[in-house]
Amino acid sequence: MKTARVAFAGAIHTAFEDPKGLRLADGRIVSETEVVWLPPFETGTIIALGLNYAKHLKELSKELTITEKDEPLVFLKGPGAIIGHQGQTRRPKDVTFMHYECELAVVIGKTAKSVTAADAMEHVAGYTVCNDYAFRDYLENWYRPNLRVKNRDTATILGPWFVDAADVADPHNLSLSTYVNGERTQHGNTADFVNNIPELIEYLSEFMTLQAGDVILTGTPDGVVDVNVGDEVVCEIESIGRLSNTIVDDQVFGR
Amino acid sequence: MKTARVAFAGAIHTAFEDPKGLRLADGRIVSETEVVWLPPFETGTIIALGLNYAKHLKELSKELTITEKDEPLVFLKGPGAIIGHQGQTRRPKDVTFMHYECELAVVIGKTAKSVTAADAMEHVAGYTVCNDYAFRDYLENWYRPNLRVKNRDTATILGPWFVDAADVADPHNLSLSTYVNGERTQHGNTADFVNNIPELIEYLSEFMTLQAGDVILTGTPDGVVDVNVGDEVVCEIESIGRLSNTIVDDQVFGR
Repeated sequence: MKTARVAFAGAIHTAFEDPKGLRLADGRIVSETEVVWLPPFETGTIIALGLNYAKHLKELSKELTITEKDEPLVFLKGPGAIIGHQGQTRRPKDVTFMHYECELAVVIGKTAKSVTAADAMEHVAGYTVCNDYAFRDYLENWYRPNLRVKNRDTATILGPWFVDAADVADPHNLSLSTYVNGERTQHGNTADFVNNIPELIEYLSEFMTLQAGDVILTGTPDGVVDVNVGDEVVCEIESIGRLSNTIVDDQVFGR
Repeated sequence: MKTARVAFAGAIHTAFEDPKGLRLADGRIVSETEVVWLPPFETGTIIALGLNYAKHLKELSKELTITEKDEPLVFLKGPGAIIGHQGQTRRPKDVTFMHYECELAVVIGKTAKSVTAADAMEHVAGYTVCNDYAFRDYLENWYRPNLRVKNRDTATILGPWFVDAADVADPHNLSLSTYVNGERTQHGNTADFVNNIPELIEYLSEFMTLQAGDVILTGTPDGVVDVNVGDEVVCEIESIGRLSNTIVDDQVFGR
């Protein structure tokens, strides 16, 4: 089952796929273009991974001494960064390198505390697509994704669909692609994770209890390029969904 | 005015100082020992500063190339780390260096977006005390406070009182002290901030909109020492409050 969360006619609704558009939980059928898409569930703590694909690590690694055996590069995102499908993402004035990052988002469904990798998948409720922009101009050090790089307003898009874990045969063999104005610029597969989902849940749940609604953003493969004002960016993950957003000028956000 | 937030007799209450103990908003007078102290307000995004005191920077800096002119070392904390006054903080088994960090916590009262330093203090609602433990064993790199170091369950204590900004004459001249089992082990003054409160609000609000309830933890001065199971740790900030907690064994938290 796939569900979305949309604003329509004065309220927020759970929405389902329907041959005629979207079916709201109250039975109304609406068009995809007359709703505002929100993140597909109420998000808790958002945990993000850096450098979790072997090839992306190589793409960036000229100055890195990190190896695949180091512990996961994890950091948190704040709620202000998060928007839904078809949202507008602000390009700061004066940056020279704003890049998308297509990522499989793993949604926790059940409290996880000191869970072993063997039991970890029982704590996964499902998945969605994430595009987690990075602003390389502000990066002083690969080990430290400064909040200016990875926690800007509107820079983390989630959706459109939450997909039940039961409907995803193998989350470690999903093709990911990003399209900028229709042209594919990024392509990878979750089979290339440095740390897989059970390993991440085991690692995290040893020191921080994971709760239903918490999200693990599993990192992005190689193939990141600069995007500009007016670009439409689509991140697509096999079996999970096709997430789009557009880049808007800093001036849209006032001073 | 000072307010606390406590659990008592089946509900959560705002509480005030009273000669006889604590006065709840509904008029009841209760003893400080018969309530559970919670963080003194509903917390939004928690933003923490590393290395924001000149002397502490020197204390740690043998391997650092960071200078006072670099941008603030900021990172986020998740909600699971946060507990209130008199809470229990878990010492992980096998760590050799768990240290407290007494910090002035600045509470945002009004949405701040692209605010200049000159206007920043208008966005501050008030202050509380924070003790934000760090676990140095897990630190691989000073630039990147890994979540294992700085986002463990129960490792960030806030309280006991929220103090209105209007009641604090100069937040940049407050004495801070930490006492372990009654002995003072840390002493500093917010006059030694590398980045002061207006500078931090200007810096942050340029890329992330700050909301009422968001908190900026302004870093700790020098004088951090290891603490152990059974220790009572008190962090005290002039005019703001005296925050205590105790260290408990990992086993209290089960496997």
